[in-house]
Amino acid sequence: MELLKEKIRQEGHVLNDKVLKVDSFLNHQIDPELMMAIGEEFARRFADTGVTKVLTIESSGIAAALTAALKLNVKVVFARKKKSALMNEEAYVTQVHSFTKNETNEVTVLKKFLGAGEKILIIDDFLANGEAAMGLARIVEQAGSEVVGIGIVIEKAFQDGGKRLRESGFRVESLARIATFAGGEVQFAEECVKHQS
Amino acid sequence: MELLKEKIRQEGHVLNDKVLKVDSFLNHQIDPELMMAIGEEFARRFADTGVTKVLTIESSGIAAALTAALKLNVKVVFARKKKSALMNEEAYVTQVHSFTKNETNEVTVLKKFLGAGEKILIIDDFLANGEAAMGLARIVEQAGSEVVGIGIVIEKAFQDGGKRLRESGFRVESLARIATFAGGEVQFAEECVKHQS
Repeated sequence: MELLKEKIRQEGHVLNDKVLKVDSFLNHQIDPELMMAIGEEFARRFADTGVTKVLTIESSGIAAALTAALKLNVKVVFARKKKSALMNEEAYVTQVHSFTKNETNEVTVLKKFLGAGEKILIIDDFLANGEAAMGLARIVEQAGSEVVGIGIVIEKAFQDGGKRLRESGFRVESLARIATFAGGEVQFAEECVKHQS
Repeated sequence: MELLKEKIRQEGHVLNDKVLKVDSFLNHQIDPELMMAIGEEFARRFADTGVTKVLTIESSGIAAALTAALKLNVKVVFARKKKSALMNEEAYVTQVHSFTKNETNEVTVLKKFLGAGEKILIIDDFLANGEAAMGLARIVEQAGSEVVGIGIVIEKAFQDGGKRLRESGFRVESLARIATFAGGEVQFAEECVKHQS
Protein backbone atom coordinates (compact mmCIF):
# COMPACT_ATOMS: atom_id res chain seq x y z
CA MET A 1 0.00 0.00 0.00
CA GLU A 2 1.94 2.93 -1.37
CA LEU A 3 0.35 5.66 0.81
CA LEU A 4 1.34 3.76 3.94
CA LYS A 5 4.87 3.05 2.72
CA GLU A 6 5.32 6.72 1.92
CA LYS A 7 4.20 7.62 5.44
CA ILE A 8 6.63 5.08 6.91
CA ARG A 9 9.46 6.52 4.80
CA GLN A 10 8.59 10.06 5.88
CA GLU A 11 7.72 9.61 9.56
CA GLY A 12 8.97 6.18 10.62
CA HIS A 13 11.90 6.33 12.99
CA VAL A 14 14.32 3.43 13.15
CA LEU A 15 15.41 3.00 16.77
CA ASN A 16 17.59 -0.06 16.34
CA ASP A 17 17.76 -3.20 14.16
CA LYS A 18 14.43 -4.48 15.49
CA VAL A 19 12.38 -1.43 16.43
CA LEU A 20 10.64 0.96 14.06
CA LYS A 21 8.66 3.75 15.68
CA VAL A 22 5.52 4.83 13.86
CA ASP A 23 3.88 6.55 16.80
CA SER A 24 3.20 9.74 14.84
CA PHE A 25 0.42 8.09 12.77
CA LEU A 26 -0.32 4.56 14.00
CA ASN A 27 -0.04 3.72 17.67
CA HIS A 28 0.06 6.85 19.83
CA GLN A 29 -0.97 9.65 17.51
CA ILE A 30 -3.31 8.52 14.73
CA ASP A 31 -3.83 10.05 11.31
CA PRO A 32 -7.56 9.44 10.75
CA GLU A 33 -7.48 9.88 6.96
CA LEU A 34 -4.68 7.36 6.62
CA MET A 35 -6.54 5.03 8.96
CA MET A 36 -9.64 5.20 6.75
CA ALA A 37 -7.50 4.36 3.72
CA ILE A 38 -6.02 1.42 5.64
CA GLY A 39 -9.52 0.15 6.48
CA GLU A 40 -10.56 0.45 2.83
CA GLU A 41 -7.51 -1.47 1.69
CA PHE A 42 -8.19 -4.32 4.15
CA ALA A 43 -11.83 -4.42 3.00
CA ARG A 44 -10.70 -4.61 -0.62
CA ARG A 45 -8.20 -7.40 0.01
CA PHE A 46 -10.60 -9.53 2.06
CA ALA A 47 -13.75 -8.74 0.06
CA ASP A 48 -14.00 -12.32 -1.20
CA THR A 49 -13.82 -14.05 2.19
CA GLY A 50 -17.33 -13.49 3.53
CA VAL A 51 -16.11 -11.88 6.76
CA THR A 52 -18.85 -11.70 9.41
CA LYS A 53 -16.82 -10.03 12.18
CA VAL A 54 -13.47 -8.32 12.74
CA LEU A 55 -11.41 -9.26 15.79
CA THR A 56 -8.48 -7.28 17.18
CA ILE A 57 -6.70 -6.68 20.47
CA GLU A 58 -6.51 -3.50 22.51
CA SER A 59 -5.20 -0.88 22.10
CA SER A 60 -3.23 -0.25 18.93
CA GLY A 61 -5.27 -2.57 16.74
CA ILE A 62 -8.59 -0.84 17.41
CA ALA A 63 -8.35 2.01 14.90
CA ALA A 64 -7.47 -0.15 11.88
CA ALA A 65 -9.98 -2.81 12.91
CA LEU A 66 -12.73 -0.21 13.24
CA THR A 67 -12.18 1.31 9.81
CA ALA A 68 -11.89 -2.14 8.18
CA ALA A 69 -15.12 -3.27 9.88
CA LEU A 70 -16.86 -0.09 8.78
CA LYS A 71 -15.96 -0.75 5.15
CA LEU A 72 -16.83 -4.47 5.42
CA ASN A 73 -20.12 -3.57 7.08
CA VAL A 74 -19.59 -5.87 10.08
CA LYS A 75 -19.01 -5.39 13.78
CA VAL A 76 -15.62 -5.41 15.47
CA VAL A 77 -14.65 -6.99 18.77
CA PHE A 78 -11.50 -6.00 20.59
CA ALA A 79 -10.02 -8.55 22.95
CA ARG A 80 -9.20 -7.12 26.37
CA LYS A 81 -5.77 -7.52 27.92
CA LYS A 82 -7.06 -7.00 31.40
CA LYS A 83 -10.30 -8.48 32.56
CA SER A 84 -12.60 -5.64 33.61
CA ALA A 85 -14.52 -5.99 36.85
CA LEU A 86 -17.57 -5.84 34.57
CA MET A 87 -16.60 -8.92 32.59
CA ASN A 88 -18.18 -11.37 35.02
CA GLU A 89 -19.39 -13.57 32.21
CA GLU A 90 -18.21 -16.61 30.32
CA ALA A 91 -15.17 -15.77 28.26
CA TYR A 92 -12.53 -17.20 25.97
CA VAL A 93 -9.08 -16.62 27.43
CA THR A 94 -5.57 -17.17 26.12
CA GLN A 95 -2.03 -16.06 26.99
CA VAL A 96 -0.21 -13.63 24.70
CA HIS A 97 3.39 -12.60 25.22
CA SER A 98 4.59 -9.18 24.06
CA PHE A 99 8.32 -9.04 23.35
CA THR A 100 8.20 -5.25 22.99
CA LYS A 101 6.66 -4.74 26.41
CA ASN A 102 8.25 -7.87 27.87
CA GLU A 103 5.04 -9.03 29.50
CA THR A 104 2.47 -11.78 29.15
CA ASN A 105 -1.17 -10.77 29.07
CA GLU A 106 -4.25 -12.84 29.58
CA VAL A 107 -6.36 -11.92 26.59
CA THR A 108 -10.12 -12.18 26.96
CA VAL A 109 -13.16 -12.14 24.66
CA LEU A 110 -16.65 -12.59 26.09
CA LYS A 111 -18.30 -15.66 24.60
CA LYS A 112 -21.47 -13.79 23.75
CA PHE A 113 -19.58 -11.70 21.20
CA LEU A 114 -17.90 -14.60 19.39
CA GLY A 115 -20.27 -17.37 18.50
CA ALA A 116 -19.67 -20.53 16.47
CA GLY A 117 -19.78 -20.46 12.68
CA GLU A 118 -18.47 -16.91 12.26
CA LYS A 119 -15.95 -15.95 9.57
CA ILE A 120 -13.42 -13.86 11.43
CA LEU A 121 -10.94 -11.35 10.06
CA ILE A 122 -8.13 -10.69 12.54
CA ILE A 123 -6.59 -7.21 12.30
CA ASP A 124 -3.52 -5.89 14.09
CA ASP A 125 -1.15 -2.96 13.72
CA PHE A 126 2.14 -4.89 13.82
CA LEU A 127 3.30 -8.40 13.05
CA ALA A 128 6.66 -9.41 14.50
CA ASN A 129 6.71 -12.76 16.29
CA GLY A 130 3.04 -13.41 15.63
CA GLU A 131 2.13 -13.92 19.28
CA ALA A 132 -0.93 -11.66 19.26
CA ALA A 133 -2.38 -13.02 16.01
CA MET A 134 -1.77 -16.63 17.10
CA GLY A 135 -3.52 -15.87 20.39
CA LEU A 136 -6.53 -14.36 18.66
CA ALA A 137 -6.64 -17.33 16.26
CA ARG A 138 -6.70 -19.71 19.25
CA ILE A 139 -9.70 -17.81 20.65
CA VAL A 140 -11.53 -18.05 17.30
CA GLU A 141 -10.85 -21.79 17.27
CA GLN A 142 -12.13 -22.16 20.85
CA ALA A 143 -15.32 -20.42 19.69
CA GLY A 144 -15.80 -22.88 16.84
CA SER A 145 -15.37 -20.17 14.22
CA GLU A 146 -13.02 -19.79 11.28
CA VAL A 147 -10.20 -17.31 10.67
CA VAL A 148 -10.70 -16.23 7.06
CA GLY A 149 -7.78 -13.85 7.09
CA ILE A 150 -5.23 -11.90 9.09
CA GLY A 151 -4.72 -8.27 8.13
CA ILE A 152 -1.59 -6.53 9.34
CA VAL A 153 -0.69 -2.88 8.90
CA ILE A 154 3.09 -3.32 9.19
CA GLU A 155 4.85 -6.66 9.04
CA LYS A 156 8.45 -6.95 10.08
CA ALA A 157 9.25 -9.64 7.53
CA PHE A 158 12.67 -10.29 9.05
CA GLN A 159 11.00 -11.69 12.19
CA ASP A 160 9.29 -15.05 12.01
CA GLY A 161 5.65 -14.21 12.80
CA GLY A 162 4.53 -13.98 9.18
CA LYS A 163 6.21 -17.29 8.35
CA ARG A 164 4.62 -19.00 11.37
CA LEU A 165 1.15 -17.75 10.48
CA ARG A 166 1.41 -18.60 6.77
CA GLU A 167 2.83 -22.04 7.51
CA SER A 168 -0.13 -22.60 9.84
CA GLY A 169 -2.34 -22.08 6.77
CA PHE A 170 -3.57 -18.56 7.49
CA ARG A 171 -4.04 -16.03 4.73
CA VAL A 172 -1.99 -13.06 5.87
CA GLU A 173 -2.18 -9.70 4.10
CA SER A 174 0.27 -7.05 5.26
CA LEU A 175 -0.12 -3.52 3.92
CA ALA A 176 3.59 -2.84 4.32
CA ARG A 177 6.20 -5.59 4.67
CA ILE A 178 9.58 -4.45 5.87
CA ALA A 179 12.53 -6.56 4.74
CA THR A 180 15.05 -4.76 6.89
CA PHE A 181 15.83 -1.47 8.52
CA ALA A 182 19.33 -2.37 9.45
CA GLY A 183 21.47 0.72 9.08
CA GLY A 184 18.55 3.04 9.74
CA GLU A 185 17.04 2.78 6.25
CA VAL A 186 13.66 1.08 5.80
CA GLN A 187 13.62 -1.39 2.91
CA PHE A 188 10.32 -2.93 1.91
CA ALA A 189 9.73 -6.52 0.84
CA GLU A 190 7.04 -7.51 -1.63
CA GLU A 191 3.58 -7.22 -0.05
CA CYS A 192 2.06 -10.49 -1.16
CA VAL A 193 3.21 -13.85 0.09
CA LYS A 194 1.27 -16.95 -0.93
CA HIS A 195 -0.21 -18.75 1.99
CA GLN A 196 0.25 -22.47 2.40
CA SER A 197 -3.27 -23.82 2.70
CA MET B 1 -28.40 11.87 20.45
CA GLU B 2 -31.50 9.80 19.77
CA LEU B 3 -29.78 6.96 17.85
CA LEU B 4 -27.44 6.35 20.78
CA LYS B 5 -30.22 6.51 23.37
CA GLU B 6 -32.21 3.99 21.34
CA LYS B 7 -29.20 1.68 21.29
CA ILE B 8 -28.77 2.05 25.05
CA ARG B 9 -32.45 1.25 25.57
CA GLN B 10 -32.22 -1.80 23.32
CA GLU B 11 -28.83 -3.25 24.27
CA GLY B 12 -27.73 -1.59 27.50
CA HIS B 13 -27.76 -3.94 30.45
CA VAL B 14 -28.17 -2.55 33.97
CA LEU B 15 -25.99 -4.60 36.28
CA ASN B 16 -26.66 -2.69 39.48
CA ASP B 17 -27.41 0.88 40.61
CA LYS B 18 -24.05 2.15 39.31
CA VAL B 19 -23.07 -0.06 36.41
CA LEU B 20 -24.55 -0.04 32.91
CA LYS B 21 -23.01 -2.48 30.46
CA VAL B 22 -22.86 -1.32 26.87
CA ASP B 23 -20.23 -3.78 25.74
CA SER B 24 -22.27 -4.91 22.73
CA PHE B 25 -21.65 -1.65 20.85
CA LEU B 26 -19.22 0.60 22.72
CA ASN B 27 -16.39 -0.91 24.72
CA HIS B 28 -15.80 -4.55 23.81
CA GLN B 29 -17.79 -5.09 20.64
CA ILE B 30 -18.12 -1.93 18.55
CA ASP B 31 -20.84 -1.03 16.06
CA PRO B 32 -18.85 0.90 13.42
CA GLU B 33 -21.86 2.67 11.86
CA LEU B 34 -23.00 3.94 15.24
CA MET B 35 -19.43 4.99 16.01
CA MET B 36 -19.28 7.05 12.80
CA ALA B 37 -22.55 8.73 13.78
CA ILE B 38 -21.10 9.46 17.22
CA GLY B 39 -18.03 11.06 15.63
CA GLU B 40 -20.22 13.18 13.37
CA GLU B 41 -22.28 14.36 16.31
CA PHE B 42 -19.17 15.38 18.28
CA ALA B 43 -17.84 17.20 15.22
CA ARG B 44 -21.16 19.05 14.86
CA ARG B 45 -21.30 20.07 18.51
CA PHE B 46 -17.71 21.29 18.67
CA ALA B 47 -17.58 22.77 15.15
CA ASP B 48 -17.25 26.32 16.53
CA THR B 49 -14.30 25.68 18.84
CA GLY B 50 -11.39 25.58 16.40
CA VAL B 51 -10.21 22.15 17.56
CA THR B 52 -6.67 21.37 16.39
CA LYS B 53 -6.33 17.92 17.95
CA VAL B 54 -8.43 15.26 19.69
CA LEU B 55 -7.08 13.63 22.86
CA THR B 56 -8.38 10.42 24.43
CA ILE B 57 -7.17 7.59 26.62
CA GLU B 58 -6.75 3.94 25.71
CA SER B 59 -8.62 1.76 25.06
CA SER B 60 -12.34 2.43 25.03
CA GLY B 61 -12.03 6.08 24.02
CA ILE B 62 -10.12 5.39 20.83
CA ALA B 63 -13.01 4.54 18.50
CA ALA B 64 -15.12 7.62 19.28
CA ALA B 65 -12.05 9.86 19.27
CA LEU B 66 -10.98 8.52 15.88
CA THR B 67 -14.33 9.11 14.20
CA ALA B 68 -14.65 12.58 15.77
CA ALA B 69 -11.13 13.49 14.61
CA LEU B 70 -11.89 12.20 11.12
CA LYS B 71 -14.94 14.47 10.86
CA LEU B 72 -13.08 17.43 12.40
CA ASN B 73 -10.16 16.82 10.03
CA VAL B 74 -7.53 16.76 12.79
CA LYS B 75 -5.27 14.12 14.29
CA VAL B 76 -6.00 12.15 17.43
CA VAL B 77 -3.63 11.20 20.24
CA PHE B 78 -4.44 8.46 22.69
CA ALA B 79 -2.79 8.64 26.08
CA ARG B 80 -1.15 5.37 27.11
CA LYS B 81 -1.90 3.75 30.45
CA LYS B 82 1.31 1.77 30.44
CA LYS B 83 4.54 3.26 29.26
CA SER B 84 5.81 1.18 26.36
CA ALA B 85 9.47 0.23 26.28
CA LEU B 86 9.53 2.32 23.10
CA MET B 87 8.43 5.51 24.85
CA ASN B 88 11.90 6.53 25.91
CA GLU B 89 11.20 10.17 25.23
CA GLU B 90 10.04 13.20 27.15
CA ALA B 91 6.44 12.78 28.21
CA TYR B 92 3.61 14.35 30.15
CA VAL B 93 2.48 12.02 32.92
CA THR B 94 -0.40 12.10 35.36
CA GLN B 95 -2.18 9.66 37.69
CA VAL B 96 -5.71 8.53 36.86
CA HIS B 97 -7.78 6.33 39.14
CA SER B 98 -10.40 3.99 37.69
CA PHE B 99 -13.17 3.13 40.13
CA THR B 100 -14.54 0.46 37.77
CA LYS B 101 -11.25 -1.37 37.56
CA ASN B 102 -10.13 -0.32 41.02
CA GLU B 103 -6.66 0.66 39.92
CA THR B 104 -4.56 3.77 39.43
CA ASN B 105 -2.77 4.17 36.12
CA GLU B 106 0.08 6.42 35.18
CA VAL B 107 -1.19 8.05 32.01
CA THR B 108 1.39 9.20 29.47
CA VAL B 109 1.46 11.40 26.37
CA LEU B 110 4.73 12.02 24.54
CA LYS B 111 5.54 15.73 24.50
CA LYS B 112 6.21 15.74 20.77
CA PHE B 113 2.53 14.98 20.09
CA LEU B 114 1.09 17.70 22.32
CA GLY B 115 2.68 21.07 21.76
CA ALA B 116 1.78 24.45 23.26
CA GLY B 117 -0.99 26.56 21.78
CA GLU B 118 -3.17 23.67 20.61
CA LYS B 119 -6.96 23.65 20.98
CA ILE B 120 -7.72 20.22 22.36
CA LEU B 121 -10.99 18.31 22.31
CA ILE B 122 -10.99 15.55 24.93
CA ILE B 123 -13.16 12.54 24.04
CA ASP B 124 -14.05 9.57 26.23
CA ASP B 125 -16.62 6.81 26.22
CA PHE B 126 -17.89 7.21 29.78
CA LEU B 127 -18.09 9.98 32.35
CA ALA B 128 -18.68 8.89 35.93
CA ASN B 129 -16.35 10.45 38.49
CA GLY B 130 -14.47 12.46 35.89
CA GLU B 131 -11.05 11.08 36.82
CA ALA B 132 -9.94 10.30 33.28
CA ALA B 133 -11.10 13.61 31.78
CA MET B 134 -9.54 15.59 34.65
CA GLY B 135 -6.28 13.70 34.11
CA LEU B 136 -6.25 14.44 30.40
CA ALA B 137 -7.06 18.10 31.11
CA ARG B 138 -4.06 18.27 33.48
CA ILE B 139 -1.84 16.94 30.69
CA VAL B 140 -3.18 19.57 28.25
CA GLU B 141 -2.46 22.25 30.85
CA GLN B 142 1.07 20.92 31.37
CA ALA B 143 1.58 21.22 27.60
CA GLY B 144 0.49 24.86 27.60
CA SER B 145 -2.54 24.12 25.46
CA GLU B 146 -6.25 24.76 25.92
CA VAL B 147 -9.12 22.32 26.43
CA VAL B 148 -11.86 23.67 24.14
CA GLY B 149 -14.28 20.92 25.00
CA ILE B 150 -14.91 17.53 26.53
CA GLY B 151 -17.05 15.13 24.52
CA ILE B 152 -18.53 12.13 26.32
CA VAL B 153 -20.51 9.30 24.77
CA ILE B 154 -22.40 8.30 27.93
CA GLU B 155 -22.53 10.42 31.08
CA LYS B 156 -23.79 8.93 34.29
CA ALA B 157 -25.31 12.20 35.47
CA PHE B 158 -26.01 10.79 38.94
CA GLN B 159 -22.27 10.62 39.61
CA ASP B 160 -20.35 13.83 40.17
CA GLY B 161 -17.87 13.86 37.26
CA GLY B 162 -19.98 16.07 35.00
CA LYS B 163 -20.59 18.55 37.82
CA ARG B 164 -16.86 18.65 38.67
CA LEU B 165 -15.85 19.27 35.06
CA ARG B 166 -18.51 21.92 34.40
CA GLU B 167 -17.75 23.71 37.66
CA SER B 168 -14.09 23.75 36.59
CA GLY B 169 -15.21 25.74 33.56
CA PHE B 170 -15.06 23.03 30.92
CA ARG B 171 -17.60 22.78 28.16
CA VAL B 172 -18.88 19.21 28.44
CA GLU B 173 -21.11 17.68 25.77
CA SER B 174 -22.51 14.25 26.53
CA LEU B 175 -24.36 12.41 23.77
CA ALA B 176 -26.46 10.52 26.30
CA ARG B 177 -26.91 11.64 29.90
CA ILE B 178 -28.36 9.05 32.20
CA ALA B 179 -30.30 10.39 35.19
CA THR B 180 -30.73 7.02 36.82
CA PHE B 181 -30.99 3.37 36.13
CA ALA B 182 -32.11 2.43 39.59
CA GLY B 183 -34.59 -0.41 39.33
CA GLY B 184 -33.09 -1.65 36.06
CA GLU B 185 -34.72 0.97 33.84
CA VAL B 186 -32.52 3.57 32.11
CA GLN B 187 -33.88 7.11 32.44
CA PHE B 188 -32.22 9.87 30.47
CA ALA B 189 -31.57 13.41 31.69
CA GLU B 190 -31.52 16.39 29.35
CA GLU B 191 -28.39 16.35 27.18
CA CYS B 192 -27.34 19.95 27.46
CA VAL B 193 -26.02 21.48 30.63
CA LYS B 194 -24.73 25.04 30.58
CA HIS B 195 -21.10 25.23 31.50
CA GLN B 196 -19.93 27.74 34.07
CA SER B 197 -17.24 29.69 32.25
